[in-house]
Amino acid sequence: MEKVTGGVTAAKGFFASSVSAEIKYKDRTDMALIYSEVPAVAAGTFTTNIVKAAPVKWDSKIIKERETVRAVVLNSGIANACTGTLGEETNQAMAEAAAKPFHITPMEVLTASTGVIGMQLPVEKIKAGAEQLAKTLSDTEMAATEAAKAIMTTDTYCKECAYSFLLEDKPIFIGGMAKGSGMIHPNMATMLSVVTTDAAISKELLQEAVSEVVKDTFNMISVDRDTSTNDTYVVLANGLANNNKITTKGAAYELFKQALLKVSAELAKQMAADGEGATKLLEVTVLHAGTKEDARQLSKSVITSNLVKTAVYGSDANWGRIFCAMGYSGVIFDPDIVDLYIEGEQHKKLKLVENGMAADYSEELATKILSEKKVIVTADMKIGEEYATAWGCDLTYDYVKINGDYRS
Amino acid sequence: MEKVTGGVTAAKGFFASSVSAEIKYKDRTDMALIYSEVPAVAAGTFTTNIVKAAPVKWDSKIIKERETVRAVVLNSGIANACTGTLGEETNQAMAEAAAKPFHITPMEVLTASTGVIGMQLPVEKIKAGAEQLAKTLSDTEMAATEAAKAIMTTDTYCKECAYSFLLEDKPIFIGGMAKGSGMIHPNMATMLSVVTTDAAISKELLQEAVSEVVKDTFNMISVDRDTSTNDTYVVLANGLANNNKITTKGAAYELFKQALLKVSAELAKQMAADGEGATKLLEVTVLHAGTKEDARQLSKSVITSNLVKTAVYGSDANWGRIFCAMGYSGVIFDPDIVDLYIEGEQHKKLKLVENGMAADYSEELATKILSEKKVIVTADMKIGEEYATAWGCDLTYDYVKINGDYRS
Repeated sequence: MEKVTGGVTAAKGFFASSVSAEIKYKDRTDMALIYSEVPAVAAGTFTTNIVKAAPVKWDSKIIKERETVRAVVLNSGIANACTGTLGEETNQAMAEAAAKPFHITPMEVLTASTGVIGMQLPVEKIKAGAEQLAKTLSDTEMAATEAAKAIMTTDTYCKECAYSFLLEDKPIFIGGMAKGSGMIHPNMATMLSVVTTDAAISKELLQEAVSEVVKDTFNMISVDRDTSTNDTYVVLANGLANNNKITTKGAAYELFKQALLKVSAELAKQMAADGEGATKLLEVTVLHAGTKEDARQLSKSVITSNLVKTAVYGSDANWGRIFCAMGYSGVIFDPDIVDLYIEGEQHKKLKLVENGMAADYSEELATKILSEKKVIVTADMKIGEEYATAWGCDLTYDYVKINGDYRS
Repeated sequence: MEKVTGGVTAAKGFFASSVSAEIKYKDRTDMALIYSEVPAVAAGTFTTNIVKAAPVKWDSKIIKERETVRAVVLNSGIANACTGTLGEETNQAMAEAAAKPFHITPMEVLTASTGVIGMQLPVEKIKAGAEQLAKTLSDTEMAATEAAKAIMTTDTYCKECAYSFLLEDKPIFIGGMAKGSGMIHPNMATMLSVVTTDAAISKELLQEAVSEVVKDTFNMISVDRDTSTNDTYVVLANGLANNNKITTKGAAYELFKQALLKVSAELAKQMAADGEGATKLLEVTVLHAGTKEDARQLSKSVITSNLVKTAVYGSDANWGRIFCAMGYSGVIFDPDIVDLYIEGEQHKKLKLVENGMAADYSEELATKILSEKKVIVTADMKIGEEYATAWGCDLTYDYVKINGDYRS
């Protein structure tokens, strides 16, 4: 498996474009289109929030009822959530406007929105934007990057990545984009991520791979424990790589799943590192847990704790807060046998805790490690054989600043 | 029921004292003692965190095994959590030192600690402190207030209150103290609260009242969603009011429970309002929910959302975040019929949302209401007849500041 440049246009037959529709932001792009020149099977996972945005309802229905789609149209600025039947009508108009230039049906167009909840999308601007999007499609790397930029809200950089691998001597490409930043605590899905691949795979197996992969990638990150109303993770596979279509579980399926995992994990990590106001990526690995689910719950509990997050921001080795967060995670374990380590990219592992009590470590060295851009925490539960990793970020003044006046 | 001045010494036969033991803080008191001149039945609830502090283990055992106790000794600065068997020995030494001057057994002394996790208590300082505490006991209001001050950590004011009521013409007093501020998200208990009463009541009914009351008081507040390792809520009843001992459920039991509810709710609200870095109290009431538990879960989900808390800090009527938080609470409801209101002490109710969509309200007025010291949110679910209220606070720069360098 090889990392390649690019994002959603890395796979054969996928095009992208972006435009400034002035939905809410000025002087920047805020709509994007991803288009496949042939029908692509589509799979996805969506927010589990009871309050679902109009595009989430639309996409869930399409993915449930249809075999293939042709395009995804996205906007930033307004989330089209809590907008009633009017919001659903506007969403449909957005799909219609995106479909029209290609003479396809609106049901072949997935939609995604992100931004403020409770405001209505300006339908005329959306229509005008969709018209422009069709005219400027391109399969260049730059087009993919510009599309990833158009869906940013409080993100400080755009998120994309791509990989290639061989399947029976056929090169397969898979690439994606995502946006994150705030209201990030995905549950069965994440805030807006689109992955495209030219692999040939059945819809059923694509959905299965998506559902598997999300558990160890997007569902393992959190910025603020707030599960959004708009979480959307969709994968389009258009088959243009001409591999023997993957229709059964075997080596080819596993290889494809690994590639999807790589792309999704990388996008998820980029989202965590660029959490609103974040200055550091916090990676927490739990080793030797009793079950996989225990390992996931323990690591996620640590990365979501406000007290852990502020301690990381302050480069304070206040490990008691990590123990506390594991303690209320709902997982049963014996705190008196747990070991805890921290490390950075510049410093090796430092043992902070041995068998539940403070080890004899240098506070000065601990502070140095915690001052790095990436802080890695490892907890050894000494119960079983399972492990999991979760990614979060520190909680800073800027998170409060950004969210104290987000709408203004 | 009448509100009276004072705290833990309001009830007959209860004494308090405080001392500067220099456990961690300088130039302030950090140990407190509450003493009953006769044996008092004791009930309590404690943290559900798997990682339990030494005093939590000690108290749970005593309340389970013994009918009565005589005293509670408390310290701030160090939490005596994650301290192994050495920590348990120190805790026992603390109980022994407090018991010795009164010629009672250590098992008649409850203990409570709050502060940094993972550090050992300095046992000699604790012993010296306990000796002093015995010498300075007093039943004055000032002694109660000074005890409440001694257990503060990042609290900005001490928390106490008291009520009196008549039971068959006998005046009964009930009063308490609490400390809160950070790592506050009680689950079946709260961070350090002691309530004393001179009512005569059986241990069984006292425990039942405590377990009932905690659900609508301490378990309904949150500062940062971090359930502490040390949460302790104990109630001592010494019977000196000479009422007919309450041994069955009836009017007397209900009256007592109401008084306990009043004291506990008031202490809980004080804790929420004084959350670390908080500038505002956020009170969220959910009306017409399907079940009591649904109402509790919905209201608690709103007060714990970082995005709601930062919006309240910024006085921004970003109601979509409130809907979002109810949406991921785990409760099933229909967002399209929900109404939402805000109000303050200076301003009447303002309807922000009608049937799930933005109502026609003045943003200017909404900002004024959200700028008050107490912000009241009401959500009408229009499903059933149940309701609940939860209390939280805003999330501010100061929360980050306080917790970025708590240990230093």
